[in-house]
Amino acid sequence: MAFDPTTLRFNEAGLIPAIAQDATSGDVLMLAWMNADSIAQTLSSGKVTYWSRSRAAFWIKGETSGNVQELVELRFDCDEDCLLVLVNQTGPACHTGRPNCFYRAVRDGDVVEISSPV
Amino acid sequence: MAFDPTTLRFNEAGLIPAIAQDATSGDVLMLAWMNADSIAQTLSSGKVTYWSRSRAAFWIKGETSGNVQELVELRFDCDEDCLLVLVNQTGPACHTGRPNCFYRAVRDGDVVEISSPV
Repeated sequence: MAFDPTTLRFNEAGLIPAIAQDATSGDVLMLAWMNADSIAQTLSSGKVTYWSRSRAAFWIKGETSGNVQELVELRFDCDEDCLLVLVNQTGPACHTGRPNCFYRAVRDGDVVEISSPV
Repeated sequence: MAFDPTTLRFNEAGLIPAIAQDATSGDVLMLAWMNADSIAQTLSSGKVTYWSRSRAAFWIKGETSGNVQELVELRFDCDEDCLLVLVNQTGPACHTGRPNCFYRAVRDGDVVEISSPV
């Protein structure tokens, strides 16, 4: 069956959450949002392209920083309301310079930083 | 610094997306939603507890099916608007009986099922 991004379930803003996972390490890198057009662009260009909610514009990940995400595979979930994007990540995924955005953990009730900018 | 769930950034419905990842395999299992109370319950009980948007009720994952998620570690991202929950998953995570919810991939423009119910 041909994939049609518009058949996915988007929220009231026309967006769907996209989890980026490093295709090699399995690390979860970040979560951002896509609309149907950014999904189509991601598939056609091979460069992972989100929709920036703050800028209300396409966000080709790494276009400015160089920390691009090369698409390996796009997957979607049972409810068709979430994407999993397997990527080859160049450089750090997080704008803080850390390898991924999930660098704070809750341990014994406290917030602990578990990675540093590279 | 003590962790206070209420300081996270929730959406207009008071919810935050939570990515569940298998702590051993690294597989991304599912994405569901939590509110501040379900985060607190998850931390205190050690049983991953979401907020069911369809039922508008706490959803202790696996309470009915037995396919529970034991909390290993809760992390949150740079923007404080997404959670990563590392878990020990009992049985399949997906209600379809598959190991995880992301069992459909887009390959050469087509939708391909990449796992079956176990």
